[in-house]
Amino acid sequence: MYSNSVEIRVRYGETDKMGYLYYGNYAQYYEVGRVEAIRSLGLSYKELEDRGIMMPVLDMQSTFVKPAYYDDVLKVTTTITELPKVRAFFSYEITNANNDIINYGKTTLIFFDWERRKPCRAPEELVEKLSPFFI
Amino acid sequence: MYSNSVEIRVRYGETDKMGYLYYGNYAQYYEVGRVEAIRSLGLSYKELEDRGIMMPVLDMQSTFVKPAYYDDVLKVTTTITELPKVRAFFSYEITNANNDIINYGKTTLIFFDWERRKPCRAPEELVEKLSPFFI
Amino acid sequence: MYSNSVEIRVRYGETDKMGYLYYGNYAQYYEVGRVEAIRSLGLSYKELEDRGIMMPVLDMQSTFVKPAYYDDVLKVTTTITELPKVRAFFSYEITNANNDIINYGKTTLIFFDWERRKPCRAPEELVEKLSPFFI
Amino acid sequence: MYSNSVEIRVRYGETDKMGYLYYGNYAQYYEVGRVEAIRSLGLSYKELEDRGIMMPVLDMQSTFVKPAYYDDVLKVTTTITELPKVRAFFSYEITNANNDIINYGKTTLIFFDWERRKPCRAPEELVEKLSPFFI
Repeated sequence: MYSNSVEIRVRYGETDKMGYLYYGNYAQYYEVGRVEAIRSLGLSYKELEDRGIMMPVLDMQSTFVKPAYYDDVLKVTTTITELPKVRAFFSYEITNANNDIINYGKTTLIFFDWERRKPCRAPEELVEKLSPFFI
Repeated sequence: MYSNSVEIRVRYGETDKMGYLYYGNYAQYYEVGRVEAIRSLGLSYKELEDRGIMMPVLDMQSTFVKPAYYDDVLKVTTTITELPKVRAFFSYEITNANNDIINYGKTTLIFFDWERRKPCRAPEELVEKLSPFFI
Repeated sequence: MYSNSVEIRVRYGETDKMGYLYYGNYAQYYEVGRVEAIRSLGLSYKELEDRGIMMPVLDMQSTFVKPAYYDDVLKVTTTITELPKVRAFFSYEITNANNDIINYGKTTLIFFDWERRKPCRAPEELVEKLSPFFI
Repeated sequence: MYSNSVEIRVRYGETDKMGYLYYGNYAQYYEVGRVEAIRSLGLSYKELEDRGIMMPVLDMQSTFVKPAYYDDVLKVTTTITELPKVRAFFSYEITNANNDIINYGKTTLIFFDWERRKPCRAPEELVEKLSPFFI
């Protein structure tokens, strides 16, 4: 397993009239979590896309344990749970400043060759970087 | 079971650089789906909130089958799968103009008394309206 | 001048903790307004893009007169104020159910040939459709 | 005048099908800019709200000079251009990693006493903190 954490501060425009971080905005926090997890490995999701490998999301699950509020600094911990082949599996845990878990979730993404319009294997260098964590 | 459908056209600002409806925006389409399902019963979610009953989301699952694109008119079919007690269960199916299923999902929400800061039973009139569909 | 109106219902996810439609979301309402204004002329902005003509926004001005609230049905009236050459000028007026003006604004967009990476003239058929309104 | 800068990385979900940071999302970047400007003075906008002083936006102007792209790290420089009385005036300049100005804008906000439902004077401590910069 490989894990990485990143902090995100809740923006005003991300809250809703209940005063909570709107439930639909967690998906974007997961996105930031996994992009930064990839960056922490010394790679860049943007460069993967520039080379024609996209990673659309196949499924998402999310459990909302406690609300997050405006201006909260949340810690998003992203874990890559399996060595990726054609799919990548990420899980997420979000905690607030009190260290309470407020949300956890997971997503499955697929490596997709944009030119050839079909799924492909995970890029070699990503597998190499991750291999030491999956022995 | 009780079902209702509503159409939503994909906005430019809801797409991402892949040209797809961004995966994080489906949660908002689910929200519109369930609010309109409640309205189709002759009730108003807004009025529930005005009376102090909020419905935060406890969990969400979403499966992305095919992409949706800018300007697509999507049909969101929302189904209330159980007669609500303290929780409400909604499932969603989203189809495009070709009648392809592009996404399906479900959410659990809880009825929450805002003043007393605790869960409560589903409002009487909602249960009454739904009862004929759960015999 | 050419005008067209469209109704948009405020979504929960578009509100903020003040209970207002978040100020940043008006830009998306303007977008819907101008896309539907183009559609009302018998054209499609999506088809313009499919043919390689994009319309990025050059500037925007917005005045927030009164708040809009969750579930409000807003009327967005979009006016094309000049016959477009290389730029298109849209103005917007948003009213609520009481017919109060809650917001007005304007945007300048440019016609942009995506392949050649430079500005271009407004498509012939758009100018033709609009000409009768600018005599 | 008082200025402060903050960096924001463009999220995938903030781009649109053109591959640009969607024009409607700049308002949220301005929001982050002014909130961090207030924080850099040793104050907290959240605490102002907790004490019943809200700051709704009255008007916004935005000029889009160049596009911003996915994963760009943008620098948002926020300037408080006048010592606030009942209104606060912010201007913004956004630059990319090449130090190109990609966007500039300004907003007017009003101090609003939420309980009494009317405009009020800027909080004493904000005026004190800012005074040295407006001599």
